Amino acid sequence: MLIKMKNATREDKLEVRKRLPGEELEIIPFGQHEIIIAKLDRKRDEYSRDLQEQLSSAPAVEEVITISEPYQLTSRKLKPEGSVVDVDGVKVGDETPAVMAGPCSVENREQLLQTAEAVKKAGAEILRGGAFKPRTSPYSFQGLGEKGLELLQLARKKTGLKIVTELMDVEHRDLVAEYTDIIQIGSRNMKNYSLLKSIGKIDKPVMLKRGMASPVKDWLLAAEYVMSQGNHRVMLCERGIKTFGEDTRYTMDLSSIPLVKEKSHLPVIADPSHGTGRWELVIPMARAAVACGADGLLVEVHPEPKKALSDGPQSLKPEKFARMMKEIRQLNELDKMDDILREAASF
Amino acid sequence: MLIKMKNATREDKLEVRKRLPGEELEIIPFGQHEIIIAKLDRKRDEYSRDLQEQLSSAPAVEEVITISEPYQLTSRKLKPEGSVVDVDGVKVGDETPAVMAGPCSVENREQLLQTAEAVKKAGAEILRGGAFKPRTSPYSFQGLGEKGLELLQLARKKTGLKIVTELMDVEHRDLVAEYTDIIQIGSRNMKNYSLLKSIGKIDKPVMLKRGMASPVKDWLLAAEYVMSQGNHRVMLCERGIKTFGEDTRYTMDLSSIPLVKEKSHLPVIADPSHGTGRWELVIPMARAAVACGADGLLVEVHPEPKKALSDGPQSLKPEKFARMMKEIRQLNELDKMDDILREAASF
Amino acid sequence: MLIKMKNATREDKLEVRKRLPGEELEIIPFGQHEIIIAKLDRKRDEYSRDLQEQLSSAPAVEEVITISEPYQLTSRKLKPEGSVVDVDGVKVGDETPAVMAGPCSVENREQLLQTAEAVKKAGAEILRGGAFKPRTSPYSFQGLGEKGLELLQLARKKTGLKIVTELMDVEHRDLVAEYTDIIQIGSRNMKNYSLLKSIGKIDKPVMLKRGMASPVKDWLLAAEYVMSQGNHRVMLCERGIKTFGEDTRYTMDLSSIPLVKEKSHLPVIADPSHGTGRWELVIPMARAAVACGADGLLVEVHPEPKKALSDGPQSLKPEKFARMMKEIRQLNELDKMDDILREAASF
Amino acid sequence: MLIKMKNATREDKLEVRKRLPGEELEIIPFGQHEIIIAKLDRKRDEYSRDLQEQLSSAPAVEEVITISEPYQLTSRKLKPEGSVVDVDGVKVGDETPAVMAGPCSVENREQLLQTAEAVKKAGAEILRGGAFKPRTSPYSFQGLGEKGLELLQLARKKTGLKIVTELMDVEHRDLVAEYTDIIQIGSRNMKNYSLLKSIGKIDKPVMLKRGMASPVKDWLLAAEYVMSQGNHRVMLCERGIKTFGEDTRYTMDLSSIPLVKEKSHLPVIADPSHGTGRWELVIPMARAAVACGADGLLVEVHPEPKKALSDGPQSLKPEKFARMMKEIRQLNELDKMDDILREAASF
Repeated sequence: MLIKMKNATREDKLEVRKRLPGEELEIIPFGQHEIIIAKLDRKRDEYSRDLQEQLSSAPAVEEVITISEPYQLTSRKLKPEGSVVDVDGVKVGDETPAVMAGPCSVENREQLLQTAEAVKKAGAEILRGGAFKPRTSPYSFQGLGEKGLELLQLARKKTGLKIVTELMDVEHRDLVAEYTDIIQIGSRNMKNYSLLKSIGKIDKPVMLKRGMASPVKDWLLAAEYVMSQGNHRVMLCERGIKTFGEDTRYTMDLSSIPLVKEKSHLPVIADPSHGTGRWELVIPMARAAVACGADGLLVEVHPEPKKALSDGPQSLKPEKFARMMKEIRQLNELDKMDDILREAASF
Repeated sequence: MLIKMKNATREDKLEVRKRLPGEELEIIPFGQHEIIIAKLDRKRDEYSRDLQEQLSSAPAVEEVITISEPYQLTSRKLKPEGSVVDVDGVKVGDETPAVMAGPCSVENREQLLQTAEAVKKAGAEILRGGAFKPRTSPYSFQGLGEKGLELLQLARKKTGLKIVTELMDVEHRDLVAEYTDIIQIGSRNMKNYSLLKSIGKIDKPVMLKRGMASPVKDWLLAAEYVMSQGNHRVMLCERGIKTFGEDTRYTMDLSSIPLVKEKSHLPVIADPSHGTGRWELVIPMARAAVACGADGLLVEVHPEPKKALSDGPQSLKPEKFARMMKEIRQLNELDKMDDILREAASF
Repeated sequence: MLIKMKNATREDKLEVRKRLPGEELEIIPFGQHEIIIAKLDRKRDEYSRDLQEQLSSAPAVEEVITISEPYQLTSRKLKPEGSVVDVDGVKVGDETPAVMAGPCSVENREQLLQTAEAVKKAGAEILRGGAFKPRTSPYSFQGLGEKGLELLQLARKKTGLKIVTELMDVEHRDLVAEYTDIIQIGSRNMKNYSLLKSIGKIDKPVMLKRGMASPVKDWLLAAEYVMSQGNHRVMLCERGIKTFGEDTRYTMDLSSIPLVKEKSHLPVIADPSHGTGRWELVIPMARAAVACGADGLLVEVHPEPKKALSDGPQSLKPEKFARMMKEIRQLNELDKMDDILREAASF
Repeated sequence: MLIKMKNATREDKLEVRKRLPGEELEIIPFGQHEIIIAKLDRKRDEYSRDLQEQLSSAPAVEEVITISEPYQLTSRKLKPEGSVVDVDGVKVGDETPAVMAGPCSVENREQLLQTAEAVKKAGAEILRGGAFKPRTSPYSFQGLGEKGLELLQLARKKTGLKIVTELMDVEHRDLVAEYTDIIQIGSRNMKNYSLLKSIGKIDKPVMLKRGMASPVKDWLLAAEYVMSQGNHRVMLCERGIKTFGEDTRYTMDLSSIPLVKEKSHLPVIADPSHGTGRWELVIPMARAAVACGADGLLVEVHPEPKKALSDGPQSLKPEKFARMMKEIRQLNELDKMDDILREAASF
């Protein structure tokens, strides 16, 4: 059960506490509101109607919401109209898909600036690039680290693009937060609860990738870890799941997009590059993602994919990316896109 | 290796045979052509250039195609422009998605006719309905059998819709072929090789559903089982695969659609009803499928889903189906749809 | 709900029918008993205590068993002490694991007789060998067919080994039944309901392999398809399931063995050859299977695995098979093996 | 390629470096040896025989080992006889399986001491218990933290059992290392590369659980992350993988045990509690694991499973645990156990 308060004084909150004796409560900032939430798992039917009415009528209480799912702050019931995450002026979650594009890894100044110019020109609003890379082998290229962050900053200055880059550990949080507009949490870290709690404590947009073997519920609970620390500026990213499939490294699970929009108010974007692992499948999957309601895309682009230090086979060349952007714009113009989003909200 | 011949006389074929001594060959009708193919697995590099040239220059030989994949007649190399399956005038595989809709099971006359009228009105060209149902439990409703086929025939007469229905066993082949325009082979029978060979022997369009745990290669080889018996009028249908997922019974694998179109000339449609198991996800997945190049859709529609004898939760009400059709038409009008198909063909 | 009757006259059965008006009943032979079972899915709580008592007291009724699972005849509640399938004198399901061994395919007379002698010498009781092979590609070796069955018959005559071989289609049922002691239904045919019903109609031991993507419930329901036609001489075989794994083609799911023994009275054996796809893993998995309660093993053996026409990499050489048999015998001598089986029965 | 050195002086190491100009090398302590290893992915065939001989003959070089797999220090080729990890006197990886048992979470003093006494009495050598719990929901019980570590320490004092407990983040490393004998890295953190590198820097036995969707290669590379920092006291733990299965939360992948022992010298144990999620399946899987070569077991035991704060359904009661220990001892006495281990080493 969540109690949504606005402009609540200290006395107002104590009043609510009084009406829930014995409960372990927590107060979480949520935009212009504050949410009081019980810390332990509570099933909805434990709260009688009487109690709910009592709480509804308390001062400064805007709404009492009973939610039977384990994820509370992430639940669409809290915000039926959906959330829009504002990334320094660029909106993710409004009616236009936001596109984040760039190389898998920041390799060198020329590669990054060249790619940044190209994606900017094609209409992307956010530049992606890894400075700290999660590699399966300790002997593989691990990324340029802080040098990579500096290059991203330079590209930002030159192009006006916002930046999204991955944070791998708590230790580097403040450094990365200094340079980036969006902190990306990778698939392999979706269950790194310490890391999630850590970025929940700062005010910086977060993009949380789905674990490659995580059901939607676990994914939303991972977002809950972030939001329950006070940071509600969370976006989700579907990037393919592990299946028996031999044709692609992962399988793009597009049905999770309308499913998540039905259950949660958070924006959800799609990564067709990791999700397919093959450049020939990226544009079809990008179109499909936008057609079923994705709020944006995360796409790998490289001027010379054959020379990429990582993920070359799934990177698009700049001209193909430009074509993808044109097609996405067309798809988005279809009237019925809004209907889908509104429909999902009303389920 | 395939040798494509046209208007070949008996002597022409003997000539080819002479140039491939010791090989086990087979002659397969393929539309206006005949294909000579080696019966055992042969790897491409075993055929020298000299031999290929020798064969190319033989009389009535139109083309010699070396294919390294195990599937030959299914391979796009045989027909780069793609195939269109003609279902008594309705085309599957041309530039307009063909929609097949109707109830999961044929339950009774009223239910079927009511649904047929509704889907016809909304623009579907083909009616689906199961007379023989594959049920996990021997105690579940197994379908109306021949009575169901008669009802489908009646609906066809009244609406002009073509019919697609599932064939479960060899024993019923001729009966079902008499009543239906398309023979559907279900997911659980994708590896029923006897059944595949049996329908390969008649001249009737076939729709082959992907096995729920089958890689694309096995799926194409299943189509190869049908085509190698002489029936080249084959369509494929993606209907979701088995994954760890808890949210939906199967996971819609949309990336298999552009992947199959890259590897094979056969038309491929999508079944978002079984693929998601939830009616709220059907329209988003239908849009996504068309956006990434599907040649058609197979959708479950029921006038009163709550009363359906099978698959109620995934069936669309007629009004929702009508809305889906409208949105699909819009999506299809986008120019770039043709580009995608041509692009896939040229990979 | 099942009503177990013994030595029931026609009037006795009519009496039961009278006490269940409006129900669709079916009478199924089950060894020395007859089971009356409702044909449609019935949930247990629909049968009141009064009704159960009424039925229990009817003449010739030995027991009334309410079963909430969808599988009834397969349920252990019907036969808590477990079943033993008698294969012409060889018992499967008693306290000694039954071993079935031989080549994947029957290739020629020498290969088969040589292997038969070797496995016989090492202590196997049943010879396996495929005459009709399920091949993913229509161009692969499909087996020797009837010639293969004759060779199996010859090996039987010379060694005294019983025979198990796969039946692929209804058409060949009587032919195969003539030559074999056990009819094997392969993984790809676990959901071939026509085939299951067909072998349910004859009196011949059946070994039903688990579908590679089938949950245990579906597997038991497939056995139910066979048994509900009257053939209760059914054994199950775990042979690996499809997972994301890259190291082995399938993943041996040994936990399904104690799980099945908890839910069903049928004997269950393990196939570590297909289950691992690698000869080095066969003996460890064979040991593990016996250690957790398997009633037997199905193992591929070939005198020269490198020359095998199918599944060479997973075949054991005769000397390795002999060593496996020694280790299995040792494991089986441990007292506690009986405890496990009895324990599982009492859950 | 690895160069194994013993008693090497600074000049000896410079000499090796001279013979590998332009390579990025790293020197890693490994017990009584030092291993020089190239930091970037190198494929074996890049090192000519001449170079290998040159290096073999350099002073203090004991052996030059070319390894084609990406994992080097983990590879069995480095230590064909296998490794034994010494946990303050308790050996893991020798011929007797080491058993680690205890509650999922440390809940309170009485629960922990009661369980510790019970498992000690039954023959376990190591006590498990979680002080920091990885919970899918931020609202679930997260563990007693340092208080839990103190209780574990107390149990150790009273019973003499060694301790294994999970470390969730880098921040708590030194605290946990102070209290525990073995640091456990959970399945969800197998790809937390920062955490792996961090524990690689201290001299403390590590138990690395397999990621629930990780192929064996990724698991060994995770171990490589730890070992390449200098800590070679690593054990592996198979705990079930994610599959389509509905019967158990995870599927125990026992074939990974002989597979890992074939590829790596590290000890590998099995966790049948998480691997099955059901207490009735724990003993059968424990027996199976030991039968196929596991070096030990990790088992959840709770005096009153119904009251457990986490994982109750999979916990064994003390009396069942005692019975499991008896059966494991019997299994282990079989002579052939040594053969299996030696055989795996010689593949």
